[in-house]
Amino acid sequence: MKMSFKPKNLNQSLANFNPKNKDFSKANTLKIIALGGVGDVTKNMYVYEYGNDIIIVDCGVGFPDEAMLGIDLVIPNIAYLRDKKQKIRAILITHGHDDHIGGLPYIWPELNVPIYSQKLTCGLIRAKFAEHKLPKDKIKTVNLSDNLKLGVFEASFYQVSHSVPDSTGIVLKTPVGTLIHQADFKMDWTPVNSQVTDVGRVARVGEQGVLMMAIDCLRVEKPGYTLSEKTIESSFAKVEAETLGKVLITMTSSNLTRVQQAINVALKSGRKLALAGRSMENNFQVARDLGYLDVPANLIVPQEEVKRFPDKKIMIIIAGSQGQPGSALSRVANRDHKFILLKKDDSVIFSADPIPSTESAQHALIDTLTRLGANVYYTAMMSDLHVSGHAAAEEIKLMINLAKPKYLLPIGGTPRHMRVFSKMAQDLGYMENQILMAEDGDVILATPGSITISGQVDVDNVYVDGLGVGDVGSIVLRDRQVMSAEGVVVVMVPVHIHGGGLAGDPDIMSRGFVFEKKAEDLINDAKEIVKSVLTEHQGLLDWRYMRHNIEEALEKFFYEELKRNPLILTLVVEV
Amino acid sequence: MKMSFKPKNLNQSLANFNPKNKDFSKANTLKIIALGGVGDVTKNMYVYEYGNDIIIVDCGVGFPDEAMLGIDLVIPNIAYLRDKKQKIRAILITHGHDDHIGGLPYIWPELNVPIYSQKLTCGLIRAKFAEHKLPKDKIKTVNLSDNLKLGVFEASFYQVSHSVPDSTGIVLKTPVGTLIHQADFKMDWTPVNSQVTDVGRVARVGEQGVLMMAIDCLRVEKPGYTLSEKTIESSFAKVEAETLGKVLITMTSSNLTRVQQAINVALKSGRKLALAGRSMENNFQVARDLGYLDVPANLIVPQEEVKRFPDKKIMIIIAGSQGQPGSALSRVANRDHKFILLKKDDSVIFSADPIPSTESAQHALIDTLTRLGANVYYTAMMSDLHVSGHAAAEEIKLMINLAKPKYLLPIGGTPRHMRVFSKMAQDLGYMENQILMAEDGDVILATPGSITISGQVDVDNVYVDGLGVGDVGSIVLRDRQVMSAEGVVVVMVPVHIHGGGLAGDPDIMSRGFVFEKKAEDLINDAKEIVKSVLTEHQGLLDWRYMRHNIEEALEKFFYEELKRNPLILTLVVEV
Repeated sequence: MKMSFKPKNLNQSLANFNPKNKDFSKANTLKIIALGGVGDVTKNMYVYEYGNDIIIVDCGVGFPDEAMLGIDLVIPNIAYLRDKKQKIRAILITHGHDDHIGGLPYIWPELNVPIYSQKLTCGLIRAKFAEHKLPKDKIKTVNLSDNLKLGVFEASFYQVSHSVPDSTGIVLKTPVGTLIHQADFKMDWTPVNSQVTDVGRVARVGEQGVLMMAIDCLRVEKPGYTLSEKTIESSFAKVEAETLGKVLITMTSSNLTRVQQAINVALKSGRKLALAGRSMENNFQVARDLGYLDVPANLIVPQEEVKRFPDKKIMIIIAGSQGQPGSALSRVANRDHKFILLKKDDSVIFSADPIPSTESAQHALIDTLTRLGANVYYTAMMSDLHVSGHAAAEEIKLMINLAKPKYLLPIGGTPRHMRVFSKMAQDLGYMENQILMAEDGDVILATPGSITISGQVDVDNVYVDGLGVGDVGSIVLRDRQVMSAEGVVVVMVPVHIHGGGLAGDPDIMSRGFVFEKKAEDLINDAKEIVKSVLTEHQGLLDWRYMRHNIEEALEKFFYEELKRNPLILTLVVEV
Repeated sequence: MKMSFKPKNLNQSLANFNPKNKDFSKANTLKIIALGGVGDVTKNMYVYEYGNDIIIVDCGVGFPDEAMLGIDLVIPNIAYLRDKKQKIRAILITHGHDDHIGGLPYIWPELNVPIYSQKLTCGLIRAKFAEHKLPKDKIKTVNLSDNLKLGVFEASFYQVSHSVPDSTGIVLKTPVGTLIHQADFKMDWTPVNSQVTDVGRVARVGEQGVLMMAIDCLRVEKPGYTLSEKTIESSFAKVEAETLGKVLITMTSSNLTRVQQAINVALKSGRKLALAGRSMENNFQVARDLGYLDVPANLIVPQEEVKRFPDKKIMIIIAGSQGQPGSALSRVANRDHKFILLKKDDSVIFSADPIPSTESAQHALIDTLTRLGANVYYTAMMSDLHVSGHAAAEEIKLMINLAKPKYLLPIGGTPRHMRVFSKMAQDLGYMENQILMAEDGDVILATPGSITISGQVDVDNVYVDGLGVGDVGSIVLRDRQVMSAEGVVVVMVPVHIHGGGLAGDPDIMSRGFVFEKKAEDLINDAKEIVKSVLTEHQGLLDWRYMRHNIEEALEKFFYEELKRNPLILTLVVEV
């Protein structure tokens, strides 16, 4: 389906360009910088800057890829903002998913500015702040009819369908023109929570002229329309009806519209509902307290009491759909859950497609659950267990046709999605230079007449590992990578504190390298090599150089013997 | 589609059971043991044992999962065979994929028995043996009409369609009845190489009675039929026609029928064809030399000469479809390939779906290639770029209806596939106890009347890491896992060789833990903790106990400070 409207031709706009007009001077230019979320699926954070005013949209976390060994989370790098804190008027949040709000507990304390969003999103942020012992007084709920004045900016929210209630798009009036920031959305005319995308509002804004729209492109590769969330309930009901034992449903814990569907099926089938997994329980609690879940009080039982009911009377919504080790479902699969014991007649429904980096973990979990005798339902063997919360190609085209922006900035996808998006937009009549193919950190300069990409700011990943934020960098990660694949060999050389001569025999230990009991000969040979290097350079006092010689000799030896390159650590101990 | 035949009822067979009949005594029982490949997708290796005779079917490698850090390959564990070598009559190979032949270079030298297979498969094995400098005189080519007498066994091969030519099933006549071993296959009536599955032969064997069939179940979750390999050629042709620059096609290097289709498209479009990647070049060479590829001599150009031709006149088949680091395609993506430079008008076709553990690597590679400006074609944005070599549900049902085995042993799948297979077989009329839900190492006991699973042999993984085979075990892997996520902290304590007292200050170094320059305070605090433990236990000579105390104190300290658990290594250096 090709839409009929024609976006304004860029060349026409450029024809109106007058370099003497002061609106076009650098000071009167809007800067748009993605600190995360462009060319990138997660850790969304966008800076809109004009003169002395900055608005931030979203502040999410990213998830480590497999090279980021041991890293818990990745957060946006706010180095660019450090000397501009006094200019930041607000953080606006589009919706309550972790890749849009999860960075706040780490980043907000440094910025300490008001956070504006819808009721449920604010509730989810408050729960995070409570966990991190942060003050909650700057988290402010706004209505869809509110118009926020934030320095030179005016901002308002409109409703969109997505897999968490209270998802929005943002209309941002700026001195260079109106922008729309449309993060995750879909066009769902029968959403579970009655929150339909406000196409009328977008059309009205579009009629008045939109300079640029930042728009979610994650599912642009899928032709047609994404199915309505409502289709899931009947799949749950079908599995429930076939199940003689307990029904376990696992999904992303922020997928609160899907939780409602599980509630509906539990109610109709006369099962009690329990929740397992901290993130699932927390999100459920917030949504229920704020009135976003329609759930009778007597439906819910604590997981501790599941055993008191016949299996046929129990449904459990359980966290861990991606096979995360340590999650509630992983513990059930390993017969290590305190309250939930899986039996032969039980069913487990995976209502979440694997994300690329976790696919094999999810597959392994499905196999483990199958081994326990449970009936496992997952996308590869039964469709209709999961639908996406993101717009497919035709929905994206509809959104663009409503807003009619002069420029498009595809967000929330990787380069491959942006490439497909660009081709699609060109089919709609856009020219290549009206489609901003940016990457995180690119500085996008907008004037009323044109938008271009120019320059880059530092957006190197900031890693969260345990309680440490930013103390693990690329050197630490590289060492972890070497040790993970090849292990470590530690060489100790005792030397006299005065004079620097050898004070004893060198020793060698290893971890993750070879099974030492079986490789005694190898280790002994390595010791001899260290001794011969020491003898050769006897009297040398430059231990830095000696260390280098020892490591080089051992590297060569281990590679020749085993084709392995362990991390070698030479320690000179002064005694 | 439900088939009409009824498998023989197991209870009837049991009715004929006479415990005094010596045929049923343990000595006259056939043992079937999967050393790999059951409940498991790769490292296929099956033992068929009767009295003094053993036949082995296949000898493949497995690929490390993400917990097997640094491991190159996994091979079957042949501990069970070590005291039975003189009984082994032959290794029969079904087809030339690495998960069926890749274990031979590591395992065959210990067994040193004849290897029988078809011409191309033998060629591929010979190439491997040449690389490992092994003698090739026991690799024997057999014809489809041959009937091998191997001790009490008689074996013959029949042809099946699969993604490598010369794929087969094996009919194994044993004293307890006829078995069929049907590894990877599909029903492709228009295969590229004219090798159609010999359904007539299977039907004739089936008419005479088959006790058990081991059968590939990997794609049983897919309803219907797998598409014919032939459908791929037109997809290649379509992309070729749209491409102004070079066409790069990446696929599994053993997918030789697909290589033929690329050849056909190159020929028709007037492009020269180059090969990049060692595995791709080797397989191509073997297949071409043995007459399995129809390729004119002047079509092929060495990759060194690609630059001499206009881009529009070049097609390249390139290894690295799974995003393997160091592969030819990865090097192209990182502008690090000696002969191939990717340009804006070039196309890259991914003609291989990602396998679960490599999905994110493949996605990252697609993004990197897109960033370079190439047009990348992959399954998510264009179907018909890849079809499976494995049978879908209806093809499996057809095969079962041809062979009509009394028992079924699903192979080549994980527990989830076996579960779906079991349900499918029950739909065909099989009873649950006629479907053998085995795991690697299970001992399957077959008599003419019945087959049961009883007992287990050791099939722990054997890891290949560099040149080492079996020297990396679970302890080494566990250490690698800890170090990969948390790093290592090394504590050195110098003590006097006589008396055991402290001979200097303890020292601490770390790798992959924290960035030391930024964490000086932390390391200094840790040193103080070590000192205080040493002071507290002054005079104690049991360094084993002291080491334990130091490690415990540091573990507690690091966890409290950072919520991290590095591997702590305390080294007592005698001086």
